[in-house]
Amino acid sequence: MTEFAVAPNGHRRRALLLGSAGLALSAPALLRPRDAAAQGATTQTQQAQTGAATAQAPGFYRFKLGSFIVTTVNDGSTTMPVAGFVRNAPLKEVQRVLAESFLPPDTHRIVFTATVVDTGRQLIVFDTGMGAQPPGSTTGRMMENLRASGIDPARVTHVVISHFHGDHINGLITGQGAAAYPNAEVVVPEAEWKFWTDASNESRTPERQRGNFANTQRRFAPYNGKVRQVADGAEVVPGIRAVAAPGHTPGHTCFHIADGDAQMMYLADTTNRPELMVRRPDFHIIFDFDPVQAEATRRRMLDRAAAERMRATGFHFPFPATGYIAKEGNGYRFVPADWSNSGL
Amino acid sequence: MTEFAVAPNGHRRRALLLGSAGLALSAPALLRPRDAAAQGATTQTQQAQTGAATAQAPGFYRFKLGSFIVTTVNDGSTTMPVAGFVRNAPLKEVQRVLAESFLPPDTHRIVFTATVVDTGRQLIVFDTGMGAQPPGSTTGRMMENLRASGIDPARVTHVVISHFHGDHINGLITGQGAAAYPNAEVVVPEAEWKFWTDASNESRTPERQRGNFANTQRRFAPYNGKVRQVADGAEVVPGIRAVAAPGHTPGHTCFHIADGDAQMMYLADTTNRPELMVRRPDFHIIFDFDPVQAEATRRRMLDRAAAERMRATGFHFPFPATGYIAKEGNGYRFVPADWSNSGL
Repeated sequence: MTEFAVAPNGHRRRALLLGSAGLALSAPALLRPRDAAAQGATTQTQQAQTGAATAQAPGFYRFKLGSFIVTTVNDGSTTMPVAGFVRNAPLKEVQRVLAESFLPPDTHRIVFTATVVDTGRQLIVFDTGMGAQPPGSTTGRMMENLRASGIDPARVTHVVISHFHGDHINGLITGQGAAAYPNAEVVVPEAEWKFWTDASNESRTPERQRGNFANTQRRFAPYNGKVRQVADGAEVVPGIRAVAAPGHTPGHTCFHIADGDAQMMYLADTTNRPELMVRRPDFHIIFDFDPVQAEATRRRMLDRAAAERMRATGFHFPFPATGYIAKEGNGYRFVPADWSNSGL
Repeated sequence: MTEFAVAPNGHRRRALLLGSAGLALSAPALLRPRDAAAQGATTQTQQAQTGAATAQAPGFYRFKLGSFIVTTVNDGSTTMPVAGFVRNAPLKEVQRVLAESFLPPDTHRIVFTATVVDTGRQLIVFDTGMGAQPPGSTTGRMMENLRASGIDPARVTHVVISHFHGDHINGLITGQGAAAYPNAEVVVPEAEWKFWTDASNESRTPERQRGNFANTQRRFAPYNGKVRQVADGAEVVPGIRAVAAPGHTPGHTCFHIADGDAQMMYLADTTNRPELMVRRPDFHIIFDFDPVQAEATRRRMLDRAAAERMRATGFHFPFPATGYIAKEGNGYRFVPADWSNSGL
């Protein structure tokens, strides 16, 4: 049973939850029915194509980083209007950038993909997705894809959270409110924990992110006594360190992952879709807590990834959500890593 | 049993077969042991990581084109030295272009991905991959991935061949020499069929492609009476037409696939890896029969795809092997299509 099954009005309840999850959607109640309609259309088409194979391959991808095994795990996607998403550029300019990448002009699809690292000693999940969702939802696929990749959540030793927006922490708990990773220590950025667990910060929080205070309490509840805070530069486990990257939220944090000479940066929400914000790091989006600080952080992190030609994963990168950052003109370009059927 | 199981010397026999398959590898006997060594290293690593999940997701990807369901199906990949691959540019220049896409400077990985179209009435496979391969090979995965995608080869109504290089026709037959698609009509470009079934053309064929004459006889043998030749512009089935694209081979052919307003071009071997040859259509590679004609064709096809902002698949595109062509400077850029977990 999902948490939505008990709601008298699925759409309304879902919209409220999204709001409290801090996703800061300006009009979630309007968006959801569109998603549902699209889903309905898909089902209808599948039925019409009698005998046709219609299933997608499971949403995970695996590659090696030194001796570490990295698995990216998709949680699905959601859509919202392009109009209004970028706050400091005309719609036409945003649409021109999207068109460079052959993305649609009116609908912005936000993709969710977590990064999982098996060091051989620890099994570490970075961010948890939207959590339990009602049947037919386009999100909430992380557990299904994690299991399809051969990973049992009970084996996960650490869950590392980049920041406390709902699409990153909601999956900490099951639909019944239990710990989704029952044997894991939860590692959180110190600055993020301090901010969202102190209700006195509410007044200086953008209104649409205020739900994060209550949602933080709820999502971390089953991990009482198992939460470890890490400061900028601190070691999560050997080879993995926190890199403060504030702006998107007050304590938003990236993670540097290295085994020997092989290194990677988990960029988390340093950018939303890279087709938009790696190309144009100057774009300020509606989800950023402090867009000016977020831009400065974005430029610093992208500069570093580009200069070191470092492999990267990002929570909103197009699946399989891994590639490289190249400097280009005043901005950058995201270059997907080459897919391999024997990535190990 | 694969055809390699009976060989007294696996590597030597395999090298000979690759040669006769018209893949025109300049030094396959040298390449194979490197592949084998890499494979051995992988197995060793997997054993060391006790308990770690190591499997890759199956190599297929599905999307809609109008009401058609398109599935790209990976056959694996092989590697060869970058040095010598491009005949008309200095190695350093080739390496500079590869570096733009974060591809390695010394090893060129060639990826093989077929396109499958379910029109609702016909189930059509475009090109067939390397066919049966020995255990541990990095190619020959098409049947496994086709079945993983839910497609039974016995349901395939048409196999369409773009040209007669071994990586496109070898998979027509099983390891036992039977028809791999027992109920399919095989559709071939008229010019390609005429050329490779006429031994009098052998003297004007580059030496490393001469094995194609014998390989053509062998691979099409079980389809006797079931081969249909199509000329430039001819309809394969409603919505799908041949588009002559000669140069890579004398009768190399693309296929335009359309349902209503939705259209796509299967570019086949108009380019090898797009990171190299979409960026630089002037690059002449060792596999081209007539590199000057191949370049003219390449420019014409890429111009069309770019001008019409048309979705494309390509046999050597990076998996999932579908995206768009953007004009950029004197060349073009391949832009991967956005992956969707609910592509239908």
